Amino acid sequence: MAQQKPSIPKGTRDFSPAEMMRRQYIFDTIRGVFRTYGFAPLETPSMENLSTLLGKYGDEGDKLLFKILNSGDYAAGLSGDEVRQASKICEKGLRYDLTVPFARYVVQHQGELTFPFKRYQIQPVWRADRPQKGRYREFYQCDVDVIGTRSLLCEVELVEIVERVFRALGIRVALKMNNRKILFGIAEAIGHADMMMDITIAIDKLEKIGLDNVKAELLERGLSREAVDKLQPILELSGDNAQKLMKLREVLAVSETGLKGIEEMETVLGYVERLGIGLDVELDLSLARGLNYYTGAIFEVKALDFAIGSICGGGRYDDLTGIFGMPDMSGVGISFGADRIYDVMMGLGLFPEEVNFSTRVFFTNLGQEEQAAALGLLRELRDAGVAAEIYPDCGKMKKQMEYANRRGIPYVVIVGSQELEAKAATVKDMRSGEQRQVPFGELTAYFK
Amino acid sequence: MAQQKPSIPKGTRDFSPAEMMRRQYIFDTIRGVFRTYGFAPLETPSMENLSTLLGKYGDEGDKLLFKILNSGDYAAGLSGDEVRQASKICEKGLRYDLTVPFARYVVQHQGELTFPFKRYQIQPVWRADRPQKGRYREFYQCDVDVIGTRSLLCEVELVEIVERVFRALGIRVALKMNNRKILFGIAEAIGHADMMMDITIAIDKLEKIGLDNVKAELLERGLSREAVDKLQPILELSGDNAQKLMKLREVLAVSETGLKGIEEMETVLGYVERLGIGLDVELDLSLARGLNYYTGAIFEVKALDFAIGSICGGGRYDDLTGIFGMPDMSGVGISFGADRIYDVMMGLGLFPEEVNFSTRVFFTNLGQEEQAAALGLLRELRDAGVAAEIYPDCGKMKKQMEYANRRGIPYVVIVGSQELEAKAATVKDMRSGEQRQVPFGELTAYFK
Repeated sequence: MAQQKPSIPKGTRDFSPAEMMRRQYIFDTIRGVFRTYGFAPLETPSMENLSTLLGKYGDEGDKLLFKILNSGDYAAGLSGDEVRQASKICEKGLRYDLTVPFARYVVQHQGELTFPFKRYQIQPVWRADRPQKGRYREFYQCDVDVIGTRSLLCEVELVEIVERVFRALGIRVALKMNNRKILFGIAEAIGHADMMMDITIAIDKLEKIGLDNVKAELLERGLSREAVDKLQPILELSGDNAQKLMKLREVLAVSETGLKGIEEMETVLGYVERLGIGLDVELDLSLARGLNYYTGAIFEVKALDFAIGSICGGGRYDDLTGIFGMPDMSGVGISFGADRIYDVMMGLGLFPEEVNFSTRVFFTNLGQEEQAAALGLLRELRDAGVAAEIYPDCGKMKKQMEYANRRGIPYVVIVGSQELEAKAATVKDMRSGEQRQVPFGELTAYFK
Repeated sequence: MAQQKPSIPKGTRDFSPAEMMRRQYIFDTIRGVFRTYGFAPLETPSMENLSTLLGKYGDEGDKLLFKILNSGDYAAGLSGDEVRQASKICEKGLRYDLTVPFARYVVQHQGELTFPFKRYQIQPVWRADRPQKGRYREFYQCDVDVIGTRSLLCEVELVEIVERVFRALGIRVALKMNNRKILFGIAEAIGHADMMMDITIAIDKLEKIGLDNVKAELLERGLSREAVDKLQPILELSGDNAQKLMKLREVLAVSETGLKGIEEMETVLGYVERLGIGLDVELDLSLARGLNYYTGAIFEVKALDFAIGSICGGGRYDDLTGIFGMPDMSGVGISFGADRIYDVMMGLGLFPEEVNFSTRVFFTNLGQEEQAAALGLLRELRDAGVAAEIYPDCGKMKKQMEYANRRGIPYVVIVGSQELEAKAATVKDMRSGEQRQVPFGELTAYFK
């Protein structure tokens, strides 16, 4: 039988060892910061009941859910027409994000949890999106949320986490912040409180399509010319955060909600300054973020030295668990985009050197006696926690050196007959080509 | 609308923070050992093409695959009967194990890989099994394999890995080893080389159903009375490994393959002894393991102090990639069962204390000025890598202490008005109840 070359479904990826080591470095760094802030890990199943997922991501989102065929005789007792309905033959779907499963978890386990509940979650999600450059059907999300408190200290903590993660990764970033209450206040101030979402969606495009096009879109969406004129100075606000907030305070004087938003923003910015968090935080009124459930602060992080979309974002939501019948649980969270962070780090060459190899020390395998000596030394190195290996087959030096070279292993320890006699190994630095003799008894210390 | 309490699909699990911290401890320990041995991480997609998965796990396995409904209009242009065929409406399935995706990866990427290729892979797999105690529809596997060499040093390395992993976890274990070539030799020696699988399957049940029932089953499967009589002394072999091997050598003298198996076994056991690997390795002829693809050594690990099935197992396969058209790639690997290891560690109380809490130090939040001081100290602790948090809302001490207590946080740092005045925090050890004063300037050093 002629065999086809095997392949994987479109939009999915294999992660090679080289890619995995870099990805693990990102995940470990992010996880380490989450832990330092007292967030605890959570994992939810890859499959959720479709009843949990459907209707939570809009009509478009419903279409992008991967549905799992019921096991066993899924079509038993169904008519042909019924089998054509996915709802009849599928009860489960793959999770689409980590937020809805988190809300489901909190509601389901509310009796066991201590609030405020701080959790992080790093798991893949699946979307049946059309695959394209940088968009995959399976990708990881790294979410961190606290739920069960309205304290703005949580927002401040998230700003700190952003600063610490990207400092650790070596990525220079700017954090843009806005507040949904300010956006609502703006809608109210121009006399269109009912059109907050339309206005927000249009403002969101400011950077992409420019002021004139945003104004045209707003008119199209049914805003009056007068309202659009009122909006213009707000969209053109300039100066530093304090100056923007001062002007906003005038414009939004008529909106209680708007003023509350300004106050929240000032509080968070005040903490950021007093705590000396070394991060450029900018109030950006054009920041809206698509998700409907945000009700307070919204965040977005961009890399300063690499052109790519936002690499981290989030915000406060006052009613995430309401969809599952548990009202009044305010929370705030952010999500790190591992794939984009990976691209930034590759583009800027930010991965540390030790991420480039899985084995640090390689032992040659040149003969019976040589092997026995090498195995003893190898065991010592591993006892000391040094990642090391020996070529499994006894044979020619050249082939073994090629193997070490192709694997990117930085050090080769040669144990041949001369070395046996001298009781000292030849250690070759594969990058510089330098060689030196190291007595067997000192080898572990040499690499530790 | 009355809301149902949300739930998750049967056979799946949420992992709470307490469970996750213990699970991460297991995964981190295993991963750390894999790394020390020069194995590199690999990840493959959760979904594979059904053509990759089908026919690889037997008829029973095919039925247990979770199939994913094609996205978009999956039934377009299909007749009712066609829609009833899963093969028409599903092209993808969730991976069933990590071995087949690994084989698929090796074949697909053979041009980029350096052989021998050493990889580990820690990812969930899915099986539409009937859920029951200890059997789940989603669970993690932790696999480590080397492919592209017949060197028995690889078997030895796996024995070392087993020893090191369970030593690190504190689980006392015994490793049972057998060799498929010996099992074949036995079948050959009793004149039923063609019935090697039947004999193996029956022998596999020895421990469970006893010698008499195994003999009855063999007769039923078509073995002659004479052959069964010949088999009996082999099944009853006793003594240490050397004694068993010596007797086997006589019985299997007629079988070239059998003798090869004995030689392999002796080689591996010889290395284990010479290297001083402190692990009880026992030759067990009743060890067969179900999987067809093993061709050499087979391994199984059991906990000595806790009654549960095998917690780790594997073996050598000479033709894993043959199913994808790449012949002659010999490899060997083992898989750690994270769920059972978890149960053993819980049962024996083996998790270290630091796995029990996500936050080590908790700061009270008792007023404006107190909060400001606490936030500064908190930042210092976090800079030093200590997992710490502050109660996000300013309020009553009692509620905050309760929160710290319920979270299992071992240290509470109280910063009240007295402490502000004294410039020294009150540190309470939540387990002993002891309190002491620590000057603000010494707090970080105190916890580091």
